[in-house]
Amino acid sequence: MLKQVIALVKSLSPAPAVHAHCDGPCGVYDPASARITAEAVVSMTKKIMDMEAPPHEDKAANIAYHNTLSRYVTIKEEQAQKTKEDLLILWTDYFKPVHLEKYPDLHDTFWKAAKLCSACKVEVSTEHANELMEAVQKIHNMFWATKERDVSFVKAS
Amino acid sequence: MLKQVIALVKSLSPAPAVHAHCDGPCGVYDPASARITAEAVVSMTKKIMDMEAPPHEDKAANIAYHNTLSRYVTIKEEQAQKTKEDLLILWTDYFKPVHLEKYPDLHDTFWKAAKLCSACKVEVSTEHANELMEAVQKIHNMFWATKERDVSFVKAS
Amino acid sequence: MLKQVIALVKSLSPAPAVHAHCDGPCGVYDPASARITAEAVVSMTKKIMDMEAPPHEDKAANIAYHNTLSRYVTIKEEQAQKTKEDLLILWTDYFKPVHLEKYPDLHDTFWKAAKLCSACKVEVSTEHANELMEAVQKIHNMFWATKERDVSFVKAS
Amino acid sequence: MLKQVIALVKSLSPAPAVHAHCDGPCGVYDPASARITAEAVVSMTKKIMDMEAPPHEDKAANIAYHNTLSRYVTIKEEQAQKTKEDLLILWTDYFKPVHLEKYPDLHDTFWKAAKLCSACKVEVSTEHANELMEAVQKIHNMFWATKERDVSFVKAS
Amino acid sequence: MLKQVIALVKSLSPAPAVHAHCDGPCGVYDPASARITAEAVVSMTKKIMDMEAPPHEDKAANIAYHNTLSRYVTIKEEQAQKTKEDLLILWTDYFKPVHLEKYPDLHDTFWKAAKLCSACKVEVSTEHANELMEAVQKIHNMFWATKERDVSFVKAS
Amino acid sequence: MLKQVIALVKSLSPAPAVHAHCDGPCGVYDPASARITAEAVVSMTKKIMDMEAPPHEDKAANIAYHNTLSRYVTIKEEQAQKTKEDLLILWTDYFKPVHLEKYPDLHDTFWKAAKLCSACKVEVSTEHANELMEAVQKIHNMFWATKERDVSFVKAS
Repeated sequence: MLKQVIALVKSLSPAPAVHAHCDGPCGVYDPASARITAEAVVSMTKKIMDMEAPPHEDKAANIAYHNTLSRYVTIKEEQAQKTKEDLLILWTDYFKPVHLEKYPDLHDTFWKAAKLCSACKVEVSTEHANELMEAVQKIHNMFWATKERDVSFVKAS
Repeated sequence: MLKQVIALVKSLSPAPAVHAHCDGPCGVYDPASARITAEAVVSMTKKIMDMEAPPHEDKAANIAYHNTLSRYVTIKEEQAQKTKEDLLILWTDYFKPVHLEKYPDLHDTFWKAAKLCSACKVEVSTEHANELMEAVQKIHNMFWATKERDVSFVKAS
Repeated sequence: MLKQVIALVKSLSPAPAVHAHCDGPCGVYDPASARITAEAVVSMTKKIMDMEAPPHEDKAANIAYHNTLSRYVTIKEEQAQKTKEDLLILWTDYFKPVHLEKYPDLHDTFWKAAKLCSACKVEVSTEHANELMEAVQKIHNMFWATKERDVSFVKAS
Repeated sequence: MLKQVIALVKSLSPAPAVHAHCDGPCGVYDPASARITAEAVVSMTKKIMDMEAPPHEDKAANIAYHNTLSRYVTIKEEQAQKTKEDLLILWTDYFKPVHLEKYPDLHDTFWKAAKLCSACKVEVSTEHANELMEAVQKIHNMFWATKERDVSFVKAS
Repeated sequence: MLKQVIALVKSLSPAPAVHAHCDGPCGVYDPASARITAEAVVSMTKKIMDMEAPPHEDKAANIAYHNTLSRYVTIKEEQAQKTKEDLLILWTDYFKPVHLEKYPDLHDTFWKAAKLCSACKVEVSTEHANELMEAVQKIHNMFWATKERDVSFVKAS
Repeated sequence: MLKQVIALVKSLSPAPAVHAHCDGPCGVYDPASARITAEAVVSMTKKIMDMEAPPHEDKAANIAYHNTLSRYVTIKEEQAQKTKEDLLILWTDYFKPVHLEKYPDLHDTFWKAAKLCSACKVEVSTEHANELMEAVQKIHNMFWATKERDVSFVKAS
């Protein structure tokens, strides 16, 4: 089936590339998207852990505390979800049977990384957030190796 | 309850339990969501194949033709995307290591099903749309077998 | 007006069906979508009611508690909203004047069901969540009766 | 049920208003949202009707033509969808049983308006786009009458 | 560059208008969208400030309180975000170099208004919510002045 | 006002960073997001320009052609929109008055970049797509200079 897809796409467009971060295929895959949102998950997790609840009787401080906590949880959720989506686009659209031969743990790597995204939503865990970051870096290395390019893993934070 | 969730998640990742069609976990997984949208992909693909281009000089008919064709392509795209997302939620959040032991082709089944979703976007292919429908039915059977429930695969169309 | 729409769609596509869960029309309507998300509303409502607040001084437990509570409220909100949207698609696109003649309480049934979706957001009420589930079942029965099909109301949870 | 919702909301917030354009309830309903997007539907419909297909052999002009046509169809779709959503929020959340007594055609007015939104997607019809605009104006008048305010129907285009 | 865009759009469509609230361009810009959502930000901010935390031991009341607080924070976030988006559409698509000559503080006005939207998310501040409302009114006046129309700033709440 | 926001955020969270790609603030800004989507705009624009319309009488080829063309236009639209959003987050949330003093053309740079995003939607223009890429690179340099970090502009395609 895959072969037919590739054949069809090639016949429709003179461009030889069949890769895309949006299953266009637009030819632009980059694990940096997942890296940026995973960094945000790590950051939000840390910020939540660092928050101190104000005394019960200080109404204004409690409102500010819950406004911030509620927003951080939502942002952590969204960023973990985006990380999951961006990783799964690589798995379902970029990686092909030929890569699976070279990386027999391909499926397992992505399955665990996706489960880590869900764990980072369900919990407030620096341990799992860091493990997610490592999983993203492993995928970054695997990805660029298939393209025979040496791209460093540069973090923004 | 929290303790139970944490315990659940810990046992899950690297880990075993917790169900949810939305990684809440809310405890409600159902492959029917993916079945409904896959039916829409089959339907839109057929409708696109059945369209007849009007004569070049009939302006009004051409506008109606392109309005319909453009909308059908967009709807096919959206429904294939939703099918992909709903299938991947089952793969990343419902299925667990214990299921993988029982279904060694679990990863491959979902990988191919996800790639079929992308193929149904890139192409207008009744063959691939039907293969997607079969992949969804296979997953429906696998899913309900893990719950030891006998749920029939009832189509809406 | 409806007649003209139907006539137009028929003229554009040889397929006789004019129904769709996405106003394509793609020909695939199924109340199962609303049933799945309503089940999630019931599930999240129960889980929220079952939560126990940890002692004020246990910081880690409080953070985990608020992470979970905040996420459950958001998921309840999203699932209630999806239920509302899926029910309204049936009301605005599937049901037609001919059905209104047969079911004179059609409008009222959907109005109340939609208001129940909003109530399930605003409140944490098992009573209203259960009433929503019943409203969805009533619509399921009404829907399949118009198609003269006998489809059972199978819940996933 | 409604009474309980109202009671609950009132008990939670000292503000007497129970209306909201987002079922918060945030207390801010305004048919102007639906009016703006309905104007966009009228505008896109006209622009599509006014487009002239270039000669078949002029490649660059054909690409520009299809880029514009495809975008206009998508924008018409989105704006009609937003109009539908904003109208339905008024119907499901703002209007209450007491209003139904005063406006017995309330349900029918919204049902027809919602069906017009779908018709404006399926077709490229200035007639239906104009009818949608009239439906929105009728709802604007009905809405402000319930609030005993005299707000003029000012269009942006 | 702008000139070329305008020339291209004019060449593609006989309509002379080049304005749009959705960069279609669909020709329908209206600051009322931003006004409605800014009103919702003001409303949600006030409602959050007015909430009273129930006694720690009243479980049901605490759940209701957190359900409401969490939802209000989310709605405030969404409405502030929509205000930001709608204002930025005016800045990036409606306003042109010719307007900048007439309003040298154009960029600064929008920059500050956008930063106020973010501040209304991060904080629960009636002061900043009111400043946002004033910024929207200033932009309303600036906008209609460029069209030489006298449109009053009518609030829904 | 800004100072107050910063003070508030600092008081709420012990973390000293006040930057975020999502106005959390989560502390993770990175122009790489805009770079990736801008690359996709360039890619889709080229692919659209390279497409050859099939003979009018070849029905299957025409359907495949329009399916591809329609999808490419939609993807170009989405990626240009994401580029716009990601650039504007930098402008509204990362850059502060102190940066404006150092880069007096800050506002103009972002205004032009945002207008280029819209131009890349309205047109199929390799010239404007390339100009957008240059604008993104200029912003990349400006951004990392404010952080006194030397980060290379590495493209994925």
